[in-house]
Amino acid sequence: MSKALRIAVAGLGTVGGGVASVLLTRGKELEQRAGRPLELVGVSARDKSKKRAVNISSIAWQADATALIQSDADVIVELIGGEEGTAYDLVKSALRAKKHVVTANKALLAYHGAELAALAEENGVALKFEAAAAGGIPIVKALRESLIAYGIDSVRGILNGTCNYILTQMEATGQSFADVLKEAQRLGYAEADPTLDVGGGDTAHKLAVLSALAFGATPNLKSMKIEGIQHITPDDIKFAREFGYRIKLLGLARLRNGHIDQRVQPAMVKLATPLADVEGPFNAVVAHAGEAGPFFFEGRGAGEAPTAGAVIADLVDIARGSFGAPFGRPAKSLTPNNEPPGPRSCAFYLRFEVLDVPGVLAEIARRLAESEVSIESMIQRGRAHGGQVAIVMITHECVETAVEKALKAIAASDKVLAKPCMIPMESR
Amino acid sequence: MSKALRIAVAGLGTVGGGVASVLLTRGKELEQRAGRPLELVGVSARDKSKKRAVNISSIAWQADATALIQSDADVIVELIGGEEGTAYDLVKSALRAKKHVVTANKALLAYHGAELAALAEENGVALKFEAAAAGGIPIVKALRESLIAYGIDSVRGILNGTCNYILTQMEATGQSFADVLKEAQRLGYAEADPTLDVGGGDTAHKLAVLSALAFGATPNLKSMKIEGIQHITPDDIKFAREFGYRIKLLGLARLRNGHIDQRVQPAMVKLATPLADVEGPFNAVVAHAGEAGPFFFEGRGAGEAPTAGAVIADLVDIARGSFGAPFGRPAKSLTPNNEPPGPRSCAFYLRFEVLDVPGVLAEIARRLAESEVSIESMIQRGRAHGGQVAIVMITHECVETAVEKALKAIAASDKVLAKPCMIPMESR
Repeated sequence: MSKALRIAVAGLGTVGGGVASVLLTRGKELEQRAGRPLELVGVSARDKSKKRAVNISSIAWQADATALIQSDADVIVELIGGEEGTAYDLVKSALRAKKHVVTANKALLAYHGAELAALAEENGVALKFEAAAAGGIPIVKALRESLIAYGIDSVRGILNGTCNYILTQMEATGQSFADVLKEAQRLGYAEADPTLDVGGGDTAHKLAVLSALAFGATPNLKSMKIEGIQHITPDDIKFAREFGYRIKLLGLARLRNGHIDQRVQPAMVKLATPLADVEGPFNAVVAHAGEAGPFFFEGRGAGEAPTAGAVIADLVDIARGSFGAPFGRPAKSLTPNNEPPGPRSCAFYLRFEVLDVPGVLAEIARRLAESEVSIESMIQRGRAHGGQVAIVMITHECVETAVEKALKAIAASDKVLAKPCMIPMESR
Repeated sequence: MSKALRIAVAGLGTVGGGVASVLLTRGKELEQRAGRPLELVGVSARDKSKKRAVNISSIAWQADATALIQSDADVIVELIGGEEGTAYDLVKSALRAKKHVVTANKALLAYHGAELAALAEENGVALKFEAAAAGGIPIVKALRESLIAYGIDSVRGILNGTCNYILTQMEATGQSFADVLKEAQRLGYAEADPTLDVGGGDTAHKLAVLSALAFGATPNLKSMKIEGIQHITPDDIKFAREFGYRIKLLGLARLRNGHIDQRVQPAMVKLATPLADVEGPFNAVVAHAGEAGPFFFEGRGAGEAPTAGAVIADLVDIARGSFGAPFGRPAKSLTPNNEPPGPRSCAFYLRFEVLDVPGVLAEIARRLAESEVSIESMIQRGRAHGGQVAIVMITHECVETAVEKALKAIAASDKVLAKPCMIPMESR
């Protein structure tokens, strides 16, 4: 029998507990898959006395995660989180000490992915992160090892379960963003500080990871356009439905003229296409792989088992000696991508909150016409003489910057009561 | 720079041509991924003079595929097809000669998978077959390497693009199976002899491969219930739609009481669930991975680029030294699965072609009641006094064998003009 792979887990939250539990209870199956035993030899977390579902009393405990590096562990599993501080220090020192690293930390990779990948390559060890994007969906492996023959043209995904849950609930109940968020926080589906999720930041971290795998782009948040879902209203969701669409927060990365456009933004996704049907806490990714066409992946994006399962798959790969460059090509070949995305050409959904007085529609129409934005359809439902009404439009295909220019002029009108809302319509 | 991986391709049809073409034109990208060059050193096909899209004039040619074994190739790519004859001999001799093998041959694996896997393991070489199931979808890798932490409960898939194309076209045009098949043959979407596709055999081969990966079952067609789509009528498709379903040919494998139920059969799939929306030549797989939940994969199931892309991914894995037991666990641990599937409990769609005379419905209802099959809804549309009409029913959940017993009695009636049609309703 081959030597065991010795594993230390730093961070015993939901995912860390799940990883420990699988290692302790499913050792036989994993050994069969890996060809050698996987042994949990150390753990680290802040509170040793905390009640946990898994019994780790027999496992060496370290209050300080970096002490795991001095242990005889072959692999450090980093589940602490955060792009700086302990997580960053731990991963760097582990790689330098020639220990393999498995992490679920998308923020860390989005900020320091290229540096850490180079460090792993220099030291001949693995840096694996299947759990860092789209939870249990094996999209990291698919982009790194499977969809490689023809290159990737674009990657689009629903990468944040909290946002998808909120949007799904807003549609189901007709409630406002704020009310659904409050309920999601009560149920534990949203963090006490939800900014990173609902503001699009978490999606951006994951998109940076997928972009690096798909296009060989240095992970870089600065070149991304990032917008969240806080401004989406029940009206938007209802109107989207009437037009045959559903609003989803998407991370989008695509090659255009040698540049990689990266955006996080709410988008109208056509009903009866795969992304539109992704509900609640599920994640999904569509990857267009050149001549091989589109591939669609869906599964749970968070939670103990999907995420711990992704970590375990990485550990079995390491046990089998199956690892190469963390991003599937040498870190030094990753290309910086510092430009913001160029303007999109597509149809847009527009919503204006206006005073219901004569001449408003004419003014909006004139401003749009001046920017050469033409309207495909318009809805103004209900009347509120002198009060606030919503006017909703779908444009023909036009250039994003033209719409933005028109909206800026329209927003300046005293009959327009709120910042106009603008959502791209995904063509497929 | 590391030594090149030397590759010989046996069979230069659509897929073989695609593999050769990628190897000859995308060498730089693949080398970056693999860490070493991938070199095409030999090819074999029946007709050397045939016009091909790819220029292979500089590559060593063998009229006899088995001669590739004597070459200096490290890997033999078997794209000849068929479960016996040249393909079987070639793969066996290649493995014995300690050459890695990549194959897209599902029939070969369904009949001889366990033997060939054992041979690969004994000789310390790879036997890889991503292209053998669901074309470009990386489901072989996902089941072998990713969804492993919690085991797999069930795998269900649309695995035959020809059948899915025919069913999609039957719905779109209202045409009969025979007419759509003829058109599909004209367009090259169906073989001149379509039996293996439309009869469910090809789906069964692929299901055997997925079952081995998911459950560690020895590939075995004898334990499968296999039914094709030849008896599906435009009426079935129309009625399915009215009930909120779509008919798909599914391969289904699931663990039940320690036994693996394996079936290939048309099934009613609920609209707006992922499998229902899989159109035309696409394939899709749903894998339930224990606590990690369901995962859904969709992509092109056949054609040059998707299939060649899957072969290329296998070759890059081999170049990186990333391979283990072909089915993800030692071949000797695969467990025989010789029993046919046990009876399903679910709702069923039933169609009876009957003489439109008084008393027919009463007779059918009585027979069903005698078998304790109760009816949830019934449609008889149109009248044809004394002529043929279709009566369609959906049962409540009941045991398959009870329905079969009732249908046998009903079929014996002289008012029943054709073998009754029975299609399970997938609950999700």
